[in-house]
Amino acid sequence: MKYEVKFLPEGKRSTVAEELPLMAAALKGGVDLANICSGKGYCGKCVVEVIEGQLSPLTDWERKRIPPERLARGYRLACQALVRGHVVVRVPDQSRVGRQRLVIMGKEPPVALKENVEKVYLELNAPTLHDPRADDERILQVLSAKGYRNLKVDYLVGKALPKVARAGGWKITVTILGKREIINVQAGDTTKQSFGVAVDIGTTKLAVFIVDLLDGNLVFADGIMNPQIRFGEDVISRLHFAAQGEDNLKEIQRTIVGGINELVNKGVADTGIKREELYELVAVGNTAMHHLFAGIESRSLGLCPYPAGLGRPHDVKARDMGLDINPSGNVHLLPNVAGFVGADAIADILASRLHERERLTLLMDVGTNTEVMLGNRDRIWSCSTASGPAFEGAHIKCGMRAATGAVEKIRIGPDFEVTYKTIDDEKARGICGSGIIDGVAEMLKSGVIDTSGRMILDNHKRIRDRNPGKEFILIFKEETASGKEDVVITQDDVREIQKAKAAMYGGYMTLMRKSRFKKENLSEIVIAGAFGNYIDPESARTLGMIPEMPLDRISFLGNTAGSGARMCLKSLDARSEAWRIAEGIKYIELAVEAIFEEEYINAMYMPNSRLEEYPETVAVIRAPKVVRRYVKR
Amino acid sequence: MKYEVKFLPEGKRSTVAEELPLMAAALKGGVDLANICSGKGYCGKCVVEVIEGQLSPLTDWERKRIPPERLARGYRLACQALVRGHVVVRVPDQSRVGRQRLVIMGKEPPVALKENVEKVYLELNAPTLHDPRADDERILQVLSAKGYRNLKVDYLVGKALPKVARAGGWKITVTILGKREIINVQAGDTTKQSFGVAVDIGTTKLAVFIVDLLDGNLVFADGIMNPQIRFGEDVISRLHFAAQGEDNLKEIQRTIVGGINELVNKGVADTGIKREELYELVAVGNTAMHHLFAGIESRSLGLCPYPAGLGRPHDVKARDMGLDINPSGNVHLLPNVAGFVGADAIADILASRLHERERLTLLMDVGTNTEVMLGNRDRIWSCSTASGPAFEGAHIKCGMRAATGAVEKIRIGPDFEVTYKTIDDEKARGICGSGIIDGVAEMLKSGVIDTSGRMILDNHKRIRDRNPGKEFILIFKEETASGKEDVVITQDDVREIQKAKAAMYGGYMTLMRKSRFKKENLSEIVIAGAFGNYIDPESARTLGMIPEMPLDRISFLGNTAGSGARMCLKSLDARSEAWRIAEGIKYIELAVEAIFEEEYINAMYMPNSRLEEYPETVAVIRAPKVVRRYVKR
Repeated sequence: MKYEVKFLPEGKRSTVAEELPLMAAALKGGVDLANICSGKGYCGKCVVEVIEGQLSPLTDWERKRIPPERLARGYRLACQALVRGHVVVRVPDQSRVGRQRLVIMGKEPPVALKENVEKVYLELNAPTLHDPRADDERILQVLSAKGYRNLKVDYLVGKALPKVARAGGWKITVTILGKREIINVQAGDTTKQSFGVAVDIGTTKLAVFIVDLLDGNLVFADGIMNPQIRFGEDVISRLHFAAQGEDNLKEIQRTIVGGINELVNKGVADTGIKREELYELVAVGNTAMHHLFAGIESRSLGLCPYPAGLGRPHDVKARDMGLDINPSGNVHLLPNVAGFVGADAIADILASRLHERERLTLLMDVGTNTEVMLGNRDRIWSCSTASGPAFEGAHIKCGMRAATGAVEKIRIGPDFEVTYKTIDDEKARGICGSGIIDGVAEMLKSGVIDTSGRMILDNHKRIRDRNPGKEFILIFKEETASGKEDVVITQDDVREIQKAKAAMYGGYMTLMRKSRFKKENLSEIVIAGAFGNYIDPESARTLGMIPEMPLDRISFLGNTAGSGARMCLKSLDARSEAWRIAEGIKYIELAVEAIFEEEYINAMYMPNSRLEEYPETVAVIRAPKVVRRYVKR
Repeated sequence: MKYEVKFLPEGKRSTVAEELPLMAAALKGGVDLANICSGKGYCGKCVVEVIEGQLSPLTDWERKRIPPERLARGYRLACQALVRGHVVVRVPDQSRVGRQRLVIMGKEPPVALKENVEKVYLELNAPTLHDPRADDERILQVLSAKGYRNLKVDYLVGKALPKVARAGGWKITVTILGKREIINVQAGDTTKQSFGVAVDIGTTKLAVFIVDLLDGNLVFADGIMNPQIRFGEDVISRLHFAAQGEDNLKEIQRTIVGGINELVNKGVADTGIKREELYELVAVGNTAMHHLFAGIESRSLGLCPYPAGLGRPHDVKARDMGLDINPSGNVHLLPNVAGFVGADAIADILASRLHERERLTLLMDVGTNTEVMLGNRDRIWSCSTASGPAFEGAHIKCGMRAATGAVEKIRIGPDFEVTYKTIDDEKARGICGSGIIDGVAEMLKSGVIDTSGRMILDNHKRIRDRNPGKEFILIFKEETASGKEDVVITQDDVREIQKAKAAMYGGYMTLMRKSRFKKENLSEIVIAGAFGNYIDPESARTLGMIPEMPLDRISFLGNTAGSGARMCLKSLDARSEAWRIAEGIKYIELAVEAIFEEEYINAMYMPNSRLEEYPETVAVIRAPKVVRRYVKR
């Protein structure tokens, strides 16, 4: 038996077999429905409102993930509700896949739960004239008998204790942080609701994850642009702004806290989780983001020798930072290695297991700043390099964020004919990071530019002179979304990419030479970072962003900073591991390294002035002899 | 050789021998100059501005107690500066003895210093490219080498760390709380400046003490009326107000915190101590005052069985409570025994050493609520009784606070002639607490009233009928300050005193009977409380406030709640002792005790309906047979 499912408001229809989930109908009908957990039920993102029709009974996941008032109004999870008749549903906006592709997910190795937060349900006797013990005493004595000794009571909890205990008829649930402090008291049994927040503060992007602390499942994930961008696109200009005075520092802190709160509030609204039950928040970011988030006086971070203000892991009460989780909850700041290698790098290592690998591995977290780590389970060397925002589509003439219509794949054929793919296969609006990498690599391979980056192609309809320099027309305006402007890659764009990739490679080579690891032992390359998933590894290699390496030994892990933050949220062991990593890592300050200068200049060539390092790449570049006939001599 | 000292602005002159302190000249000349430490220099209260003349060089105490900017302007301590020529000085207002006698001092047994706060001076190496460790790491590693391990860094300290460390050229002083947390970092060596605040929150009076934590000396002491009085004179009406809603509770908390801040700010201004260097605040009060100060939901405190919300000692960050000390400083709340026996009673016991006494002792802290404690080193029983504000001069027709012009001593002769003494020997304005006790006791002894409290005197110029009841004219209006109103004690006044003293005695007898201590073993009576110093013990005994006991076994300790708070501020051992006392004390809830009812009624008589308990007193009362000829039958 088959039934029809109709999706409102767009009115799309889809017919599926009985006992298939609504999600199957959505997929079939081309309805855009969020789905993080692959239909297992725990992400709770695919919530829809049932207008009419017959479906299977509510599952446990639905009872857990849909707030009671929504359950009462007929909301279901599309992955859980099985079709048993013709159905009409409405898809709320927040259940749709966002149009802007802000990559916030990353690979996360399995981690055994060892939360910092415990919930304990207590049934107590009410005070009587024969037992008029104080409320705190009554609770602490029972907890002590259960093995929870010497607990502190958070101030806000103590203030509310008498009221809550009575509201619950002395049946209450106590939340204990780190086996040392009561941070929440609630009426009734709420032991099944315990959540935490992981935050990845990138220079450009901000990602927030809500995790169920009882099973470790991700229940909410979302990202926005870091709202601090209005104080400057790069780290240095934000540090400069913050250094102008106490008020500036406060403002820049308030801005990032506000951004996090915006996402947390969205998560609370979407999932129906109570803010009171968000007990911990683990934040990572590079050292500057970490400091500006915490409101740490950061002037010295911008001055040689660029020491971090706070390097160790720190725990702060949520209310002290104005974060919209439980005000008595804990904010855990992961350790920083140095002024420009921060908690995000530690999180990258945790998630990539670099510190457990036997073979020598290069790990790069590509972003506005790129952290470069080289090592294995014996030792890890690190540095940070200002690769700039070019890879994120900024400072590029036709650059744009990775959103609908952005060119993300490019191939240039023997006669310079261009094939390309845009995000969502819409008409082209511009070029995103992965597109510009492909574009420049293809320009190099096809002979539009030479290894110094100079545009050597001439006398071709796709090349035109502009002031300054030339530009290569990727897509003629007739094919674009606007219909008015060509999509081009300019000489300046190529220079931006050269500088960015030279910084990355220079960082890698400095580590290699200073550490006395052996180049021939390098066995794997791991690229992390919010946009890493979409880079073509061959293009990256062609440009010389990374050393030459068989493609099967280059992997992309996505936003591992967020993964590491989630791991530390779920596991105290991961936090200890993070600190051990931070303590053991060797940091190199590139700003004063002559080796870096030298390698940076070598790497301004594509792939490198030391061509012998890139035999395969060189073979490809030199292949298209055809270019010669267009080249002006 | 003798020299003249002139005191401005009043222009009083005084001549003293060379090498005598200015204080000696002030005493001789009748200049009113504050002096808490008896001229030892450490209270710093007697600061004067030297206009001209020759004095001895500055002493260490002067350098320690007078802020640098005042030192530069010629301020001196009158007890330290020795006269070496004719001198002219100006006495600032804050150096004068306050006119209102708000008794805030109490007996304080010596206590060995064991502060919760330590200051450590560090000289660190600045970061270099070869040693770019983070600022926190740099500091914590040196502290760890000195034996301070696993320190937390308070959030505000962490934020300011980079700036302060550099301001001090990496020579800094770190303040450590409880060997576990850094709560202050300052540039330079400030190890000699470490202060704490002790606060006694009485229902009617509020006292604040600033103590030098390095030597235990008191450097500032002042009191005001508890500003919560506008929400009700007694505890019950304030609890009622607070129970009306969250905002009321917040308002009443803000009010008391505001009062404390007012006194702390005065202390800071008077002494030149930096607010940043007030590192701890220890507060005591009865359970209701404790809860309203901390902002604890207190509805249940007013409902049988009146359990305290928080009974245990608690530590709270100063910034969480809005107190004007170092925001990272610690507020220590002493434990409460029960709903109506609070931290102030524990402090009384600590200061009176009741828990160490071999002999059975009755300890009463007399105030709007009177805490009654009976026991010795083996065990202590306690209760609280609502004695009302009569002893503080309230609810008494001519009652007034203990200020200039208040009648404080009264004797009534054989023919009802009255002799009296006023505070500051000014013309009478009213009667204060000790005066009303004297007055009623003398009225009883002289036969103005009988043992039931009824005014039996008649046909005498000092007796007149009013509606309702009679009144006894203590002082005719011609002799008073106003010249317009007689100072009288009314029949209602007598009833107020009877009720108050009956409550106290009823509390004592209930404890005696329930505890199975033996009445014949009662060996000492200790009266504590802000006005206790001024009570005539014989009058108190005559009224039957206390059991009959030789006068040399009745002692007055003053405001021991404040003393106990100071002891706990100075010594962690005293805090442990306080908690042991609180754990061991047996509490009796009078509200449901039939024995209390019975003893209360017995004690409405003066001294008591069981006259056999007061043989000496009865002998005195019956002596003045002369009364008979005025008594109307």
